[in-house]
Amino acid sequence: MMDNGGFCNDNYHSGSSDDELVDISDATEDFSEDVPPLDRDYSAGRCKPDWRPNNSPKLIDFLDDTVPGIGTYEDFNTIDWVREKSKDRDRHREITNKSKQSTVALLFSVSDAFSGWLLMLLIGLMSGALAGGIDISAHWMTDLKEGVCLNGFWFNHEHCCWASNETTFQERDKCPQWKTWAELMVGVNVGASAYVVNFFMYVCWALLFAFLAVSLVKTFAPYACGSGIPEIKTILSGFIIRGYLGKWTLIIKTITLVLAVSSGLSLGKEGPLVHVACCCANILCHFFTKYRRNEAKRREVLSAASAVGVSVAFGAPIGGVLFSLEEVSYYFPLKTLWRSFFAALVAAFTLRSINPFGNSRLVLFYVEFHTPWHLLELIPFVLLGIFGGLWGAFFIHANIAWCRLRKNTRLGHYPVLEVLVVALLTAVLAFPIEYTRMSSSELISELFNDCGLLDSSKLCDYTGNSGSSSGSVNTTAANGLGARPAGPGLYTAMWQLALALVFKMIITVATFGMKVPSGLFIPSMAVGAIAGRLLGVGMEQLAIHNHEREIFRGWCSPGADCITPGLYAMVGAAACLGGVTRMTVSLVVIMFELTGGLEYIVPLMAATMTSKWVADALGRESIYEAHIRLNGYPFLEAKEEFRHKTLATDVMRPRRSDPPLSVLTQSGMTVEEVERLIADTTYSGFPVVISEQSQRLVGFVLRRDLVISLENARRNQEGVVSMSSILFTECDPPMSPSAPPAVKLRSILDLSPFTVTVHTPMEIVVDIFRKLGLRQCLVIQNGRLLGIITKKDILKHMAQMANRDPDSILFN
Amino acid sequence: MMDNGGFCNDNYHSGSSDDELVDISDATEDFSEDVPPLDRDYSAGRCKPDWRPNNSPKLIDFLDDTVPGIGTYEDFNTIDWVREKSKDRDRHREITNKSKQSTVALLFSVSDAFSGWLLMLLIGLMSGALAGGIDISAHWMTDLKEGVCLNGFWFNHEHCCWASNETTFQERDKCPQWKTWAELMVGVNVGASAYVVNFFMYVCWALLFAFLAVSLVKTFAPYACGSGIPEIKTILSGFIIRGYLGKWTLIIKTITLVLAVSSGLSLGKEGPLVHVACCCANILCHFFTKYRRNEAKRREVLSAASAVGVSVAFGAPIGGVLFSLEEVSYYFPLKTLWRSFFAALVAAFTLRSINPFGNSRLVLFYVEFHTPWHLLELIPFVLLGIFGGLWGAFFIHANIAWCRLRKNTRLGHYPVLEVLVVALLTAVLAFPIEYTRMSSSELISELFNDCGLLDSSKLCDYTGNSGSSSGSVNTTAANGLGARPAGPGLYTAMWQLALALVFKMIITVATFGMKVPSGLFIPSMAVGAIAGRLLGVGMEQLAIHNHEREIFRGWCSPGADCITPGLYAMVGAAACLGGVTRMTVSLVVIMFELTGGLEYIVPLMAATMTSKWVADALGRESIYEAHIRLNGYPFLEAKEEFRHKTLATDVMRPRRSDPPLSVLTQSGMTVEEVERLIADTTYSGFPVVISEQSQRLVGFVLRRDLVISLENARRNQEGVVSMSSILFTECDPPMSPSAPPAVKLRSILDLSPFTVTVHTPMEIVVDIFRKLGLRQCLVIQNGRLLGIITKKDILKHMAQMANRDPDSILFN
Repeated sequence: MMDNGGFCNDNYHSGSSDDELVDISDATEDFSEDVPPLDRDYSAGRCKPDWRPNNSPKLIDFLDDTVPGIGTYEDFNTIDWVREKSKDRDRHREITNKSKQSTVALLFSVSDAFSGWLLMLLIGLMSGALAGGIDISAHWMTDLKEGVCLNGFWFNHEHCCWASNETTFQERDKCPQWKTWAELMVGVNVGASAYVVNFFMYVCWALLFAFLAVSLVKTFAPYACGSGIPEIKTILSGFIIRGYLGKWTLIIKTITLVLAVSSGLSLGKEGPLVHVACCCANILCHFFTKYRRNEAKRREVLSAASAVGVSVAFGAPIGGVLFSLEEVSYYFPLKTLWRSFFAALVAAFTLRSINPFGNSRLVLFYVEFHTPWHLLELIPFVLLGIFGGLWGAFFIHANIAWCRLRKNTRLGHYPVLEVLVVALLTAVLAFPIEYTRMSSSELISELFNDCGLLDSSKLCDYTGNSGSSSGSVNTTAANGLGARPAGPGLYTAMWQLALALVFKMIITVATFGMKVPSGLFIPSMAVGAIAGRLLGVGMEQLAIHNHEREIFRGWCSPGADCITPGLYAMVGAAACLGGVTRMTVSLVVIMFELTGGLEYIVPLMAATMTSKWVADALGRESIYEAHIRLNGYPFLEAKEEFRHKTLATDVMRPRRSDPPLSVLTQSGMTVEEVERLIADTTYSGFPVVISEQSQRLVGFVLRRDLVISLENARRNQEGVVSMSSILFTECDPPMSPSAPPAVKLRSILDLSPFTVTVHTPMEIVVDIFRKLGLRQCLVIQNGRLLGIITKKDILKHMAQMANRDPDSILFN
Repeated sequence: MMDNGGFCNDNYHSGSSDDELVDISDATEDFSEDVPPLDRDYSAGRCKPDWRPNNSPKLIDFLDDTVPGIGTYEDFNTIDWVREKSKDRDRHREITNKSKQSTVALLFSVSDAFSGWLLMLLIGLMSGALAGGIDISAHWMTDLKEGVCLNGFWFNHEHCCWASNETTFQERDKCPQWKTWAELMVGVNVGASAYVVNFFMYVCWALLFAFLAVSLVKTFAPYACGSGIPEIKTILSGFIIRGYLGKWTLIIKTITLVLAVSSGLSLGKEGPLVHVACCCANILCHFFTKYRRNEAKRREVLSAASAVGVSVAFGAPIGGVLFSLEEVSYYFPLKTLWRSFFAALVAAFTLRSINPFGNSRLVLFYVEFHTPWHLLELIPFVLLGIFGGLWGAFFIHANIAWCRLRKNTRLGHYPVLEVLVVALLTAVLAFPIEYTRMSSSELISELFNDCGLLDSSKLCDYTGNSGSSSGSVNTTAANGLGARPAGPGLYTAMWQLALALVFKMIITVATFGMKVPSGLFIPSMAVGAIAGRLLGVGMEQLAIHNHEREIFRGWCSPGADCITPGLYAMVGAAACLGGVTRMTVSLVVIMFELTGGLEYIVPLMAATMTSKWVADALGRESIYEAHIRLNGYPFLEAKEEFRHKTLATDVMRPRRSDPPLSVLTQSGMTVEEVERLIADTTYSGFPVVISEQSQRLVGFVLRRDLVISLENARRNQEGVVSMSSILFTECDPPMSPSAPPAVKLRSILDLSPFTVTVHTPMEIVVDIFRKLGLRQCLVIQNGRLLGIITKKDILKHMAQMANRDPDSILFN
């Protein structure tokens, strides 16, 4: 696990191997923890050609439930949802049946039923606690770049000054206990030398944090890099990446996330928090048999954990659940909806009781607006939506191009250097401007805020305020009451924000995808918030200077509180985040939870809808899907409908030029023949037919099960030699007494493989694969087996069709 | 449509006919509006045994897209989701292809793409406007029972007094312009005579409204009765009930809803508003080809309309969307989620701009609590949950028993009389008690409210208040500040509430299911709110009188504001509604939208969870599912997992004792033979096999398509006689030149019928039916066709298994 470095944006296996079915030979057989017994029972075995249920005694196979490994999956393989769900139902049935027999079993069955809720509670508590720890540490370390608290180095700036006597609002930031590095080193806090010292220390700390982060990731847990959401989406769709949600990843991701955020890099902690929550969930699953042994059940828990991640990231539990539903999850039954909601709430309340922001607020950016918006303002909101869509499309293209460059050139060989260079650039460029020096979430928070009575920020420097320099307000009267012309401080702030916008837009492209934990919610929102605030102030000034014009008359005269630049910032943030992630409902709901008022949903919705449409018109994938494709994960997108007119016959293997399908016959093959077939091919499963001539389908057997069973038979069953015949039939055909004993493998045979006909339209086949979570499907015509379609075949076909007809997406 | 009276709680066809496949012979062929062409194209027809795609020219059948009726459904039949979705994709593909040819076609394709959004906008506007109208009319007519406004009879009480000079809060209710009936008739407003006159007028109006409501429903639109949610659930799952969402139903339901609510019957307008919104959606669908002609697309719109209904009922758009997702919808793709949200918001804002409550609030019950809750209070909240669960289970059992009685005895023959008797009882019993005399939603609103500074209600009569009689508060000091012992007014109120609780519980059971529009959200919530308020006041007094005890010390001393009875009422309302409907997330979110604070989610969740668990333990069905089963609709519940160990072979037809499956052969049958088969059987479709001997499956043909095609061939194709052979093959077999021309029916043959093997566990079959929305599925073994499973077979099997093992539900 430690040495498969270079996971972020590398193919999970080299790009040349084109099929999931291929890469199976070099698998290490890791049975250490996932050893569910083969508890699937194809009802009583029957030995008559009559298929109807009868009371013939069950034919007990020597190959009972005990062969380890049967029913498990290789790393980098897709699970079979149908089989996993069947397994869970069997397990459940067994518990229910036993529960009628004794009180202990009854208690066990009740505890089993409630274990899901207990698990959710634990996930909520653990994730909430971790998120609180991350928040507090990141806050402290971010402040450490600027100075240190004399009362105790472990206090952050705000905390340090709580105990201070300077109780007025403006002075609180400047308590004597908090020393900048310049004050500590050269004794002054103004002037060129102080600036240089502070600058130097800021850059040094940033580099140190970045170096630590990337080294830890590289050394201990390469899976800890990136946001994790593309991989979690893939895992939830049924893929297996061992160790991706393990304890090392959790520990390293938690630590390096704090370091990465504190280093001032243009990244956020929201995406990685989803990964952290999923790691918690995966680790906690090990304590519950129900979830440890079942990949499908575990994925239900992981879906809930994604909701938990967003819930603690923003303090928005409902938004988190909808995020999981809309963006991440693949299989989301109603039971999971309810449990996700529970876990998300527990996590949010755990976080609140830790109170990392010191304000008893649940939400990350608490805002309260007092002015209603006017219908005409929808025009700038839609403009923000267009900006968000353009930014989203630009960001995705640029970031993917950059990641491709990293992957294909020598750049990818120096991840530490890359991180250090980007961190240095970020720190050097960010320090001079106030708005880039502060952390992105502080910046967003400031941009979202409405100018209040006591606001000392330059952003609120209107000529109505007497104090025009930043940081001091002498009169409090008449502030925050109505629109006023901009003061010089505001003009400075605007220029600085414009610079910050350009800087953030460029540096974020280079940052996302580096070998540190990096979310892009916060950077995207920062870009949008800056653009929105700029537009908002612009609109405000436009309205003030043209208040006698027709369009502004009546709703926006000087002194009237008509335009809220903070709302523009919020709408802009939503639009940009929407453009990048293509979230819609969940995004609006998260924003709704931040404001707590339905009042502002319409602007948010107008902007996110526009943003999604614009971005979709320029490129159909969200950043997560783009990264999934970049990394070549086998992910079958559930959102996009397959609309091409191909049939199953166009997609199935073997193709016309290929050799015929490798099949087993239900009787008549010897161990040697089967072993040769296994050695000669790389398919992950074989259809079993009645005979080579008739090609009438009996069932499907997985390569892994077959290999394990044959090894087991050779080892444990007496007399099995290469000439022993292999039987998939219900009853023994007549054999000569001198023949070696047969190996009976009916128990590993899937007697109900999914089939479609050659005429089935691919749109229906895709639908079946998506909705039922299949790995493969057999293709028959008039009862004869003709071919097989795997998930990989479908993905390849979809990619081909999409390339052929790129603009079909516009009209769905 | 006018004369199939008795729809509410009658089987849609008589209970003895046990199969959907049976009742097809007496169908009236109504092609008036739903005549989509058969635009399904099974790729190019090919005439070689080779199945691979080749360039053979398409064999054009005489039976082209023009036969009317093919691809439509009978009334009371289930749609084929797969076919409908295929049809939509074909349609979309055609538009996309054409759009490349001309600008007009491009514009058409863009307008087609946005027509969904336009439709949502229209549904939102129409539903919002209707809901506003209903609210205003119901408010006015409810007040009409008590008196009339002299300024204009069309003013309701509140509106009448707006213009009044009495501007103080307490006096506003008693403005001189508003006259009670006693004042108008006998000139006095106090004393026995006034009471009798008011009583008499109240009962008269109630009876008049109730009579009008039931007569209109009975005469013009029998489908307008009930809440409509069970039927909408069934329709959304793919069932067809013609006229259920038609314009007559809309008009009559809107009018009678107002009448029924105003009559004072114990019913609410929330469920019927969902029905009204769905009617709007269905009617508006007729203006958009995309939705008019496709049953699956129309159901997506209807899902969104359900969200709109709840959104306007409570002013809770997000809750509405989740309600649609959790409770009503069957197929809810992400696109629908986003559109539902849009429509729900539009509707909510339309309603707000109509402003029926006169307070600019979006929500039905706006509450604002100021006191945080204490962890110990979770105990009473859980108790409320238990009460809610018990009430839910009791209500469902009692109501179903009552409805069954109505259905099976002569009671059902006198719907008008029944409504009049219940209305009379309700009015006579309700008038004496203040809390039952007011409308249920006013009552809930009052119970939810925290006692404020100026509250004049008896519920807020604490000894700290100087005015102990209801209605007048002389001092405003020290009110609403902290817990105080109860005054005599509060004790009176408690007794009255207790009586009201018993009354509401009993009368609601008899009311739901009568032949008037009746929702049960409001009555259920009223029951819970009363119980909650009682418990809340009890807790408050307990805390005050035991404030020195260990458990209350520290958080609840006299004067401290520690217990909010209004919150208890809210929690109780959620618990009772949850017990009846088994909603969970959506309920909590609706309540969250009412309060706007995440603070109170935990109590609400604790109560709804407890309520659901308790109610589920006592009976697994929600009231809607119980009514669906009572009415015998073919509804395949998506929530409950099928956990029994049966196989497809146990469920499929024909059973062992039955005659063999009726099949067609792909060639060799004559028109006469097929017509005889159609006449002799009642199946709604026939499998087509290669030959009787091999039983190898070729495809499936629907009875309706077959009948229409044969009629059409006999009418329009020259030379077709009874001896003409019917061909489902790709190419013509050699025939003697003297034989009559063959009827080629390959175009109506479904070449990709769904198949499972006999060994497929039923849990997987049920999953396939649910997720893909199938009507039937063929069962094969080793390539031979053995039987068929229809949706009805599955429903019957599930019912059998559930009866055999009734307590399995406890442990899922």
